[in-house]
Amino acid sequence: MAITYELVKRCSKTGARAGRIYTPHGVFDTPIFMPVGTQATVKAMSPDELKEMGAGIILSNTYHLYLRPGHDLVAEAGGLHNFMKWDRGILTDSGGFQVFSLGPLRKITEDGVTFRSHIDGSKHFLSPEKATEVQMALGADIIMAFDECVPYPAEHDYARTSTERTTRWADRCKKAHTRKDQALFGIVQGGMYKDLRTMSANDLVALDFPGYAIGGLSVGEPKALMYEMLDHTVPLLPATKPRYLMGVGTPDCLIEGVMYGIDMFDCVFPTRVARNGTVMTKWGRLVVKNAAYARDFRPIDPECSCYACRNFSRAYIRHLLKTDEIFGLRLTTMHNLHFLIDFMKKMRQAIIEDRFPAFRQEFWEHYKTH
Amino acid sequence: MAITYELVKRCSKTGARAGRIYTPHGVFDTPIFMPVGTQATVKAMSPDELKEMGAGIILSNTYHLYLRPGHDLVAEAGGLHNFMKWDRGILTDSGGFQVFSLGPLRKITEDGVTFRSHIDGSKHFLSPEKATEVQMALGADIIMAFDECVPYPAEHDYARTSTERTTRWADRCKKAHTRKDQALFGIVQGGMYKDLRTMSANDLVALDFPGYAIGGLSVGEPKALMYEMLDHTVPLLPATKPRYLMGVGTPDCLIEGVMYGIDMFDCVFPTRVARNGTVMTKWGRLVVKNAAYARDFRPIDPECSCYACRNFSRAYIRHLLKTDEIFGLRLTTMHNLHFLIDFMKKMRQAIIEDRFPAFRQEFWEHYKTH
Repeated sequence: MAITYELVKRCSKTGARAGRIYTPHGVFDTPIFMPVGTQATVKAMSPDELKEMGAGIILSNTYHLYLRPGHDLVAEAGGLHNFMKWDRGILTDSGGFQVFSLGPLRKITEDGVTFRSHIDGSKHFLSPEKATEVQMALGADIIMAFDECVPYPAEHDYARTSTERTTRWADRCKKAHTRKDQALFGIVQGGMYKDLRTMSANDLVALDFPGYAIGGLSVGEPKALMYEMLDHTVPLLPATKPRYLMGVGTPDCLIEGVMYGIDMFDCVFPTRVARNGTVMTKWGRLVVKNAAYARDFRPIDPECSCYACRNFSRAYIRHLLKTDEIFGLRLTTMHNLHFLIDFMKKMRQAIIEDRFPAFRQEFWEHYKTH
Repeated sequence: MAITYELVKRCSKTGARAGRIYTPHGVFDTPIFMPVGTQATVKAMSPDELKEMGAGIILSNTYHLYLRPGHDLVAEAGGLHNFMKWDRGILTDSGGFQVFSLGPLRKITEDGVTFRSHIDGSKHFLSPEKATEVQMALGADIIMAFDECVPYPAEHDYARTSTERTTRWADRCKKAHTRKDQALFGIVQGGMYKDLRTMSANDLVALDFPGYAIGGLSVGEPKALMYEMLDHTVPLLPATKPRYLMGVGTPDCLIEGVMYGIDMFDCVFPTRVARNGTVMTKWGRLVVKNAAYARDFRPIDPECSCYACRNFSRAYIRHLLKTDEIFGLRLTTMHNLHFLIDFMKKMRQAIIEDRFPAFRQEFWEHYKTH
């Protein structure tokens, strides 16, 4: 087994669980948030900074790396870990989400997806076999099956057809996958339909993957609907395997996801909003770029132990952002990632001490959603 | 005295000298290269990274900080050192160079310069008194007299009138300057005219500044002419005071400047070209962004000990630059600054061991100018 999941503690009142995942590049604790490093770099961060904030695994994007610099070049560099000098865990997505997002630039058949590059318009083809080959060349510890993320809203018919194909593609990925030092995860789809989520989960579990993602959520649906889907889907997955909720990274969704039993999360949200001058706190978001902070000489969060909060004021960070200085983006990005990683650690500690429900209640008393 | 200069060793064959400058924020060795942090940040770098590469003093720009975030705000933050969390030396320029560069946006009188902000067109006035007041509020260790950098080429008449005014302004700056924990440097002008350089140097030396800059060089003139001016001007300055050559930062000009007896240099060159994908080496420049380096898995310079060269390949750095990733700019910037700081240290060591001429000769055998 390339990876193994160890269950450390179950919450006695909710589905939340604390665990540990062993990979060829070290061990990480769950629940965990994975910073996104789309193009073999977590935007604005160095590997050392990611380690300092406690990141145990990061995500990188197959679609982007396939186009630039090319998976063959990355393989020649000794794989993604060596290319970007990150010796902890890496997960790559399959590229499916990106090529399906290309809209008119792509064409889907049973075989795979023909698409044009968003960079230069060149024509490419990704299939379950090709996506697996590319991910084997990249060499992440966890790789993902090639799937379609069912859009929202979608008719039941479309969602069923798509989800059934995703399962057939998952089977093809499994057959194409030959690297023993990588774990291939299946992705549960099914749109917002419980019957399809059940079908997808059962079919994928029958294929026996070392871990399962839940895809097709956080795609524009109301949060209550996402929670309903999680409540329905998570219990269908084996308790002995990791569960990964794709594309989720706001504190409220993270705490609820953990409550339903999710172990892993990723999202570009914390890094993207950071570059727009928004920082995350336990009270909600703070637009540090706003004029209100021009003469505010307190740190972003006086209780935060990140490098940005230990050293710099809101006024200084605002100045950097207003003058388009790169160091400003570095500080807000660092704070947001540190905040989420720390938030997950606190949740884990609460689970271990069997006080997760109280932790969650306290969170909701302070947190302002947006 | 806010700062003192200690002569450590003179080269027995050239004007080169090794020294040490004591400031309220620590001691730094000379000759030294000062990274430029225009807007209270050395572009893309953290204070910790600057320390790691051995920066002893950085330069910041009065014009930019006066406009954004404003010197009053910086003073409220406890001064520039505290605002940007840099506890080593800082030098601020006077803003003169920038406002004179504004062309049609500025108007010069004996009193000072009226100009419009390049950001929002708002009207402002800088004079010797005002530039000094702003620099006192910013609180750098070394501040500069308000001067006109004589453009190149300039008629003798223009250069004389301008240089005489610069001297009168230097006198006014000295009278306006009341902070005992700051050293105010005079700036020798005079264009490319030896008689005017002599006049300027003599007049400023008579005013007794704690240090002297040579301005108005590296402004488009042939390098041979710059060297001729240095050869003429440096001996006019007191050996007991630091000498600062403004706006110079390529290896060839640094080594020649040191040979003529210069102690301090600054330039945006290393950080600016870094952001365009060019790195500096002892052999000359290397455009790491070029296709030639796509599969070059060696570091920028195998002998360099900077963080970028210790960890990352040309291929990876090129990939980051081609995909507009901030981490790419961080690595090239870090390398270039490390290279220049290290180059100055090596020169200093050569001076101390009285082998500077041989060091210089060896440099010229390898180095390709551009």
